[in-house]
Amino acid sequence: MSNKFCKVPLWECSATLSAVAMGRVPAETVITDAKLVNVCTHEICEHIDVAIHSGRIALVGDARHCIGEGTKVISADGAFISPGMLDGHIHIESSMLSAGEYARAVIPHGTSGIFYDPHEICNVMGLEGVNLMVKDAERTPLKAMLTTPSCVPAVPGFEDSGSTITSADIASEMKRDEVVGLGEMMNFPGIINSVEETHRITGETLKAGKIVTGHFSIPDTGRALNAFIASGIRCCHESTRMEDALAKMRLGMYAMFREGSAWHDLQEVSRSIRERDIDTRFAVMISDDTHPYTLCNDGHMDHIVRRAVSFGVDPITAIQMVTINCAQCFQLDHEIGSITPGKCADIVFSRDLNDFRPFRVMIDGDVVAENGEMTVSFAPYSYPESAMHTMHVGETITPETFRVPTEKQGSATVRAIEIIPARVGDYERHVTIPVKNGLLESDTEQDVLKTFVFERHHNTGKHGVGFVKGFNIKRGAMASTVAHDAHNLLVIGTNDEDMALAANTLIERGGGMVAVRDGQILGCVELPLAGLMNPMTAEEMSEKVGALSRAWEEIGCDIVSPFMTMALIPLACLPELRLTDRGLVDCTKFCFSPLEV
Amino acid sequence: MSNKFCKVPLWECSATLSAVAMGRVPAETVITDAKLVNVCTHEICEHIDVAIHSGRIALVGDARHCIGEGTKVISADGAFISPGMLDGHIHIESSMLSAGEYARAVIPHGTSGIFYDPHEICNVMGLEGVNLMVKDAERTPLKAMLTTPSCVPAVPGFEDSGSTITSADIASEMKRDEVVGLGEMMNFPGIINSVEETHRITGETLKAGKIVTGHFSIPDTGRALNAFIASGIRCCHESTRMEDALAKMRLGMYAMFREGSAWHDLQEVSRSIRERDIDTRFAVMISDDTHPYTLCNDGHMDHIVRRAVSFGVDPITAIQMVTINCAQCFQLDHEIGSITPGKCADIVFSRDLNDFRPFRVMIDGDVVAENGEMTVSFAPYSYPESAMHTMHVGETITPETFRVPTEKQGSATVRAIEIIPARVGDYERHVTIPVKNGLLESDTEQDVLKTFVFERHHNTGKHGVGFVKGFNIKRGAMASTVAHDAHNLLVIGTNDEDMALAANTLIERGGGMVAVRDGQILGCVELPLAGLMNPMTAEEMSEKVGALSRAWEEIGCDIVSPFMTMALIPLACLPELRLTDRGLVDCTKFCFSPLEV
Repeated sequence: MSNKFCKVPLWECSATLSAVAMGRVPAETVITDAKLVNVCTHEICEHIDVAIHSGRIALVGDARHCIGEGTKVISADGAFISPGMLDGHIHIESSMLSAGEYARAVIPHGTSGIFYDPHEICNVMGLEGVNLMVKDAERTPLKAMLTTPSCVPAVPGFEDSGSTITSADIASEMKRDEVVGLGEMMNFPGIINSVEETHRITGETLKAGKIVTGHFSIPDTGRALNAFIASGIRCCHESTRMEDALAKMRLGMYAMFREGSAWHDLQEVSRSIRERDIDTRFAVMISDDTHPYTLCNDGHMDHIVRRAVSFGVDPITAIQMVTINCAQCFQLDHEIGSITPGKCADIVFSRDLNDFRPFRVMIDGDVVAENGEMTVSFAPYSYPESAMHTMHVGETITPETFRVPTEKQGSATVRAIEIIPARVGDYERHVTIPVKNGLLESDTEQDVLKTFVFERHHNTGKHGVGFVKGFNIKRGAMASTVAHDAHNLLVIGTNDEDMALAANTLIERGGGMVAVRDGQILGCVELPLAGLMNPMTAEEMSEKVGALSRAWEEIGCDIVSPFMTMALIPLACLPELRLTDRGLVDCTKFCFSPLEV
Repeated sequence: MSNKFCKVPLWECSATLSAVAMGRVPAETVITDAKLVNVCTHEICEHIDVAIHSGRIALVGDARHCIGEGTKVISADGAFISPGMLDGHIHIESSMLSAGEYARAVIPHGTSGIFYDPHEICNVMGLEGVNLMVKDAERTPLKAMLTTPSCVPAVPGFEDSGSTITSADIASEMKRDEVVGLGEMMNFPGIINSVEETHRITGETLKAGKIVTGHFSIPDTGRALNAFIASGIRCCHESTRMEDALAKMRLGMYAMFREGSAWHDLQEVSRSIRERDIDTRFAVMISDDTHPYTLCNDGHMDHIVRRAVSFGVDPITAIQMVTINCAQCFQLDHEIGSITPGKCADIVFSRDLNDFRPFRVMIDGDVVAENGEMTVSFAPYSYPESAMHTMHVGETITPETFRVPTEKQGSATVRAIEIIPARVGDYERHVTIPVKNGLLESDTEQDVLKTFVFERHHNTGKHGVGFVKGFNIKRGAMASTVAHDAHNLLVIGTNDEDMALAANTLIERGGGMVAVRDGQILGCVELPLAGLMNPMTAEEMSEKVGALSRAWEEIGCDIVSPFMTMALIPLACLPELRLTDRGLVDCTKFCFSPLEV
């Protein structure tokens, strides 16, 4: 597969690399005296040098003869070196950062490559948006390997998104060098029910010899999981139980253990390898969604490695899971994922495998970060105006918009979406709430809040209505244009006035996330780029998000990353009940459900 | 990579497979109640069913719901099932069998796929010969995956072969679906010395996204091995010491442990994984060269698995080494190498992992062998006349041809090639032999015999002269047109009359191997197909080769497979001293050496 992400393709520099290894041509860079974390053999090899030329590794071992005039010598002083880390499944948009700022945030933590699925911007702006992210990313040293969004809209027929991806689009996208595979195929109903167009989307990827990544989120380890894998889907990051991950690995699927900012599956899911003495080559760790606070304060894959080790995963195994295992999943192990001759010189320096903290990061042979800071800069990038104006709501929103009439009197039983903090799933609950003046109202005593999703891409004026439970908001409202996967305008609140204020604030500011109370804006993160991202730095965004989190707390919510949990309320490919601009969706049966029981 | 070797490409049948897994379409075949050797997780999973459709696996687990009218149910009755075995590096020609008869010989032993390098026929007939083997193989169920010969001639400038392969040939061959990689790059001097054309040959393969297989036969684990691997060469089967194999795996190269008919490296080389607790994913076992007697009496990869287990390799690990590890080496693990959904239904049934003897073999969902016999037949195939007449020796060979004049008197010191039984290497020895009538003669007391190599492709009349030591022949001569890699006519003998008889017998019979004594032909294996193969069955050939072996014994030679050791005498890519039609080659310095010291 593609060499788009290397400084020089191997076939152009192999003769030079062999000359360097033999000592006829001096290396550009030599690392001396390192402890190599050998992910091929699962060993620590001591007193190892690495000779580098043309961005690639020429020799691993004793490299004294590779040092010549002009060779940059970097002594590791006995520190560990391990391969640059790979995030096998990540949505950059969830960080609310632009691709370039995302790269700047993760590289110092030891990440050299990501397999990103720009599914969110694609839902808003289509492939035009994807291409903007590609352009933004390619000026950075990060190997931003694209998996083309497969499910836009996520679950066709149940929501209105800004764009649509067809199998014909996929056939043509797969010809691009920067595309290494298909983004998470989450239309598992389409796959297991043999829907032709869904299989055409995966089929065009297979035909191109590229990797189909998956999303299988139901607790089935039998026929449906088999049907999904048999369709050529190679990996899945949706295991939430150890038995899901184990079943996937046994069936030859790469089980990607997720540890994102809001979804903490690793402890449970890693039991599959901690409690059983199995071959771990099919185990991978990924972040999926990470918000800027996590990136700034905890880290990225280094943080996930530390978490795994804290749960009892062997440190070398943990490093294999974010390097060679991931590279083999994507059949890119000839390019990345190990510190071996011929591979890209993507190398992380650290001092303690039990507390894995990269202090120097090399990508393609260049030191790109030291002590947590980037040491190289890259060209500025501006997104075009079209990407900065994507709020197209077709109705004028007023407090009256939020009235929900009912024929019931006194009280009514409604379907409510109950969130599960730190998990992607939710529950369908039937709750009896009071009816006032013929209207269904939020009931803060039961923690049941009115929820609206407004179509915001094509001015259709559509909106869906539901109730959510679990945020514990007592007064006020919040709104977000980060609302998976169609990213329509989601509004939740205790009263119609605050809900209207929250919605209109985001419409005016081009998208974002806001919390209001009693007519006051308590916190707002503007996300003018497609209503999803902001070109500011991770630190600036982290601060803004922190302020919003405090605003959430002020109005009563104390769950972890509430906005990420909130953002999944419309995600109709996850169980059990979801709300889109078209209405309530039963995501176990894939049909619309009426609001009232 | 390519799906040329499957019954139906996955993208054409994925919707059907998911329907089978879900129970909507009945499976074509269901295997019930098996003990699955799970090569993904290194486990035995009990009571496993496998549902099959379109030659592929639809489901692994409980398949009761996949059985419908017309489903063929095969009860495993608690037997083990493991993936069809892969031989990661094999020259079919060494079996002296045609490709079709080779397939018939190995399939009943559990081999479902081979990565073959038709290097020998290519040296004789060029790509035309390769294509004949492709055509012969493709009518069989065996997945005969082609690695295009990379080194024809083996070491340019040191021998005359029947054909030449250039980087331009490789560039065009790599476009073919049946080509999965480049055959063993044994011109390691060209690679490590950065010779442009050699790197172009590997480069064209890398550019096509295919696998470069290697041959690195010097005991170097430092700069030269690094230079070789850095050039993109992914595997090597030439390790003869445990430290070679260990170094290769540590450097991210697949170490292919060889156990051929004549070269028994496995016991020593497998120490790398038996004596160290390392990750074994880079360990593979291969046969390289197997003669018909071995195939008929010992087996193929099953025999190698049994050998590994007898040396103390864990049985599941041994099976991984001939299945998933090999598939991952060739980045074909999405198609073959494991019993998991979506993969080709290549399945081996056996009853005892400690004495691994396949009793049923399935390829692409069809039972193709039971109890050691093929259960399917395939269309006949005839090689064209041109392939059956390839002896073109440009001189009339008489006893006088074998006179070796010298200026020395009484005695002379010559360079002799000392063979090492059961190893591919040899030693350069300096031996003082008597001079009679101004001629150097064989000296049976010291076991030093005259040896000639005659160019046989283009009637050039060239021949090279040397001496060999180690065969222990007391009277008579032997000749062979199997004489790696140019496959010129090789003659060894104690006297000129028998040498002439041996040579002329093979010229008359279109090639083969012969042993003569005192003017009598004691044994002859005719190899009319390119002077390398015979379209007879393995059993017939085994008998013929057995008769020849007895003839060898009659003339005094008692080493294992002497003709295979003999055949390497001209192989100028192996250390230390070799004889080609151009003369003696010092294979450590890559220069010609004079006969006399």
